[in-house]
Amino acid sequence: MQIAIIGLGKMGGNMVKRLLRGGHQVVAYDRDSAAVDRLANEGATGARSLEDVVAKLSAPRAVWVMVPSGAPTEKTIEELATLLSPNDIVIDGGNSNFRDSIRHAAALAEKKLRFLDAGTSGGIWGLENGYCLMVGGDPTAYAHVEPALLTLAPKDGVAYLGKAGAGHFAKMVHNGIEYAMMQAYAEGFELLRASEFGYDLGNLSNVWNQGSVVRSWLLELAASAFQKNPNLDGLKAYVEDSGEGRWTVNEAVAHAVPVPTIAASLFARFASRQDNAFSLRVLAALRNEFGGHAVKKA
Amino acid sequence: MQIAIIGLGKMGGNMVKRLLRGGHQVVAYDRDSAAVDRLANEGATGARSLEDVVAKLSAPRAVWVMVPSGAPTEKTIEELATLLSPNDIVIDGGNSNFRDSIRHAAALAEKKLRFLDAGTSGGIWGLENGYCLMVGGDPTAYAHVEPALLTLAPKDGVAYLGKAGAGHFAKMVHNGIEYAMMQAYAEGFELLRASEFGYDLGNLSNVWNQGSVVRSWLLELAASAFQKNPNLDGLKAYVEDSGEGRWTVNEAVAHAVPVPTIAASLFARFASRQDNAFSLRVLAALRNEFGGHAVKKA
Repeated sequence: MQIAIIGLGKMGGNMVKRLLRGGHQVVAYDRDSAAVDRLANEGATGARSLEDVVAKLSAPRAVWVMVPSGAPTEKTIEELATLLSPNDIVIDGGNSNFRDSIRHAAALAEKKLRFLDAGTSGGIWGLENGYCLMVGGDPTAYAHVEPALLTLAPKDGVAYLGKAGAGHFAKMVHNGIEYAMMQAYAEGFELLRASEFGYDLGNLSNVWNQGSVVRSWLLELAASAFQKNPNLDGLKAYVEDSGEGRWTVNEAVAHAVPVPTIAASLFARFASRQDNAFSLRVLAALRNEFGGHAVKKA
Repeated sequence: MQIAIIGLGKMGGNMVKRLLRGGHQVVAYDRDSAAVDRLANEGATGARSLEDVVAKLSAPRAVWVMVPSGAPTEKTIEELATLLSPNDIVIDGGNSNFRDSIRHAAALAEKKLRFLDAGTSGGIWGLENGYCLMVGGDPTAYAHVEPALLTLAPKDGVAYLGKAGAGHFAKMVHNGIEYAMMQAYAEGFELLRASEFGYDLGNLSNVWNQGSVVRSWLLELAASAFQKNPNLDGLKAYVEDSGEGRWTVNEAVAHAVPVPTIAASLFARFASRQDNAFSLRVLAALRNEFGGHAVKKA
């Protein structure tokens, strides 16, 4: 089928390649014209602007937005809303908040435009393995773009999950689970390393991946990381978060659902970014106040 | 090779079968003679007592103890110590505490007996998939029983990890990680279910298992559970623990390693077993005291 991909970064660029390999006609656009040229060389139809994207597509147009979540996605969808025609389809494949997706669906519907929110997982491995796609929104739009979805996803790796927001909500929870799973492994590896047994963590991760209960794709990545760098030398113990973990905790609060491990894994990341944390200085000060315990000078 | 398996429950019984399929000569013993008879019918050499086990093995004897951890394992190893001859091998394949394994290795060494602690993961799926084996103890004993280990484990699923205790410490941490991973999924599924989107959790688990970052064997089991019983009707929200989670938290305390998600997942299980918890009645009483908030009668 014919589809446009807006945003040719690590995710969008590889998605264009996978779609091209699947025999689809892909219109590719990025603000960075060099990225467009690279994919045009591989068979995509390069576009120089969103107007150009729209001009190069046949109706009903399908435009997959794969730019950073927040302002870039917002701006792109707003501009597309002014350029597209009734019955055209906007797919937000980024990590947008599901509430934004519900809003986008409603705003686009006023112009008779159809919307899909497609939570997309798989990272840089998606080109090879396929992208897991969690899709919400207009079911007729889903049916129209299904050939592209089936190419992007591995077998059985795509589903229509319900009304607008259902895709990004599922992706949000997916990432919340991911945070806590990563933290679970991280805690275990630190305890193994603190033991008297001098474990080879790469070897142990590999063994665990063969038949144990904790085997997983994340553990395969851990094995790969430890084999390249057993002590993770040169890495700073500093961890970013990209929003979905926070939203998962926010939604847990909204629904009064206890999520102790997901919240703890998010807070561990926050703590990793603190320098001489005030809360810990409060603890040191209080121990000194009540017990005369020694304090360290910063 | 020739090896004895003591304890023919869900784990030990299937291990006998897998060893027989691998062409090994297996002496099988259980207090339950019917279990012995069943495996004798499949080709094992049945034994009627530990003395009989020892009589039916050639030196150096290899005896794999697969009885419940704690007193049953303790008693079996103590009795074997009185029956075996120098250079014979005792393998503890149960979920023993690694400190007990260090002690067993030392006590058996006084009688010139060799010891291996073999953390064993795979549950009831091990017969089909193989058992992940994490082994510590006497390296010459490991070399002797390696043919059996290679049959029990899937490819690359067994490793010698170091001195006595290294196997059970690794298995302990494995189970701690398992607790937190299970809790991470559990929290995510509860939040998905609390949402407005009416997810089919079996379908979503299946989709997540295709290319997403959270794909894992545990998630395959979740998909299976949800497909059989989407709302988990008839299950009580009551979760046992079998020791390794507690030991993981204990060792984290001993080594001053923060394990917030593993501890939270253990405590979630404890909370699941409380009925009208006193701590929550304390909270209700305090809210009533300071704010006049309504309390519910038990």
